[in-house]
Amino acid sequence: MTMTTQSQTQANPQMQQHMMECIQNCLDCARACEMCAAECIRMDMPGMAECIAACLDCADICLLDARLMSRNSPMHFDTCALCAQICTTCGDICERMAGSHPGQSATMMQECVEACRRCAQSCSAMASMRTAMH
Amino acid sequence: MTMTTQSQTQANPQMQQHMMECIQNCLDCARACEMCAAECIRMDMPGMAECIAACLDCADICLLDARLMSRNSPMHFDTCALCAQICTTCGDICERMAGSHPGQSATMMQECVEACRRCAQSCSAMASMRTAMH
Amino acid sequence: MTMTTQSQTQANPQMQQHMMECIQNCLDCARACEMCAAECIRMDMPGMAECIAACLDCADICLLDARLMSRNSPMHFDTCALCAQICTTCGDICERMAGSHPGQSATMMQECVEACRRCAQSCSAMASMRTAMH
Amino acid sequence: MTMTTQSQTQANPQMQQHMMECIQNCLDCARACEMCAAECIRMDMPGMAECIAACLDCADICLLDARLMSRNSPMHFDTCALCAQICTTCGDICERMAGSHPGQSATMMQECVEACRRCAQSCSAMASMRTAMH
Repeated sequence: MTMTTQSQTQANPQMQQHMMECIQNCLDCARACEMCAAECIRMDMPGMAECIAACLDCADICLLDARLMSRNSPMHFDTCALCAQICTTCGDICERMAGSHPGQSATMMQECVEACRRCAQSCSAMASMRTAMH
Repeated sequence: MTMTTQSQTQANPQMQQHMMECIQNCLDCARACEMCAAECIRMDMPGMAECIAACLDCADICLLDARLMSRNSPMHFDTCALCAQICTTCGDICERMAGSHPGQSATMMQECVEACRRCAQSCSAMASMRTAMH
Repeated sequence: MTMTTQSQTQANPQMQQHMMECIQNCLDCARACEMCAAECIRMDMPGMAECIAACLDCADICLLDARLMSRNSPMHFDTCALCAQICTTCGDICERMAGSHPGQSATMMQECVEACRRCAQSCSAMASMRTAMH
Repeated sequence: MTMTTQSQTQANPQMQQHMMECIQNCLDCARACEMCAAECIRMDMPGMAECIAACLDCADICLLDARLMSRNSPMHFDTCALCAQICTTCGDICERMAGSHPGQSATMMQECVEACRRCAQSCSAMASMRTAMH
């Protein structure tokens, strides 16, 4: 566990702003992934397994990361790195899905892609701040 | 479990709008509760136990409720009723706390009070729609 | 929220024993539901939607209930009642599934049915203790 | 994300046995951490902040890891590595606490220490299997 304390983070208002945005991106992404997974499950047809599985993992990791950032946990750099990883993977999987499905389902998948990309970007930036602080 | 299906809910655009707002209120409230609990824990002094415990329960129930609404789960009326209950309790407890603490901590507690009140109101409205639909 | 305090519960060793068993049943059920949902997703064929959706809701509610009991939260009677409800529903859905699928998948579904039934029974008993205590 | 698939893991019965034990250790540890955090919160006295914060993070990460292993998620090697890290830290913090508190609270803290150590060990072993498989 890193030695970064709550006070170090709070000492930097810009970092706190980044963190608030990152928490919101994680919560948005968790919601988009839950909605995308639920839509894929309701479609009840072959070819959806990879997308459902990625969305479920992504939603769980995004919520964990949002909680740990909200608490200013010293683990949040690690969970941000993990979150950036699953969001990138999930965004790619959902993008392939969106391209091969019509109508309302594709819209929901595309919203998930965008939420994953935004979340991956801000979590990746958060994770890299650990190094920057030392 | 109620027999309300996903299609019944989707058939009503106004209800879907209410649900999207309610999901956002739950996610906002979970974040505010995590932040308030973490601040109370960091204060590391007597008299915070009730507030910490209420905020932890409230954050967990809000996140569950947000997930079940995102999935359009038939259980979401029940989890909304439960969420309205804990948000009302948690808002009252945090309000008493905010009144007796100074400065930055009181600000964080007051933000939690407001998030709890908004969430309680929209979850209560969501829960009452079950009856309205039958 | 009920006024049942931690000390009331702790005053009764038999109730504490019931609670420890109930926590374990919730954790076992969450694991069985996650495994059943994942297996149904991997099968990647039509007809699995209801089972996947029920298992995901059941896993989430079981984990919440286990956490609130572990904390001796005053909300645990309500979450136990909710948990008994989804476990009963999920057990019935998985039982129908297990009857119409062969081999290893049916075994996993049947294990989920048994975990749901055990959890429904102990959560239902826990929920009814609220009345018994007043 | 690693390319380890569900079938690779299932092809190895010994690894599946390790995973079932590791899931159980994560669930046990999450319960012990929730109970320890709740006890520390109820004590309502200075000096508990570090222990409460570590237990809350540890419980959340253990539950995530248990879910991802139950699903046979390709992310489970990463979440096991993360879980081993927080369990080691949390066990050390709770051990210091247990040494300086009397009676029933110390017993609960000591149970948490043991659950954290067992979980750290099995998660660490799981995480190292990624390398072993390639």
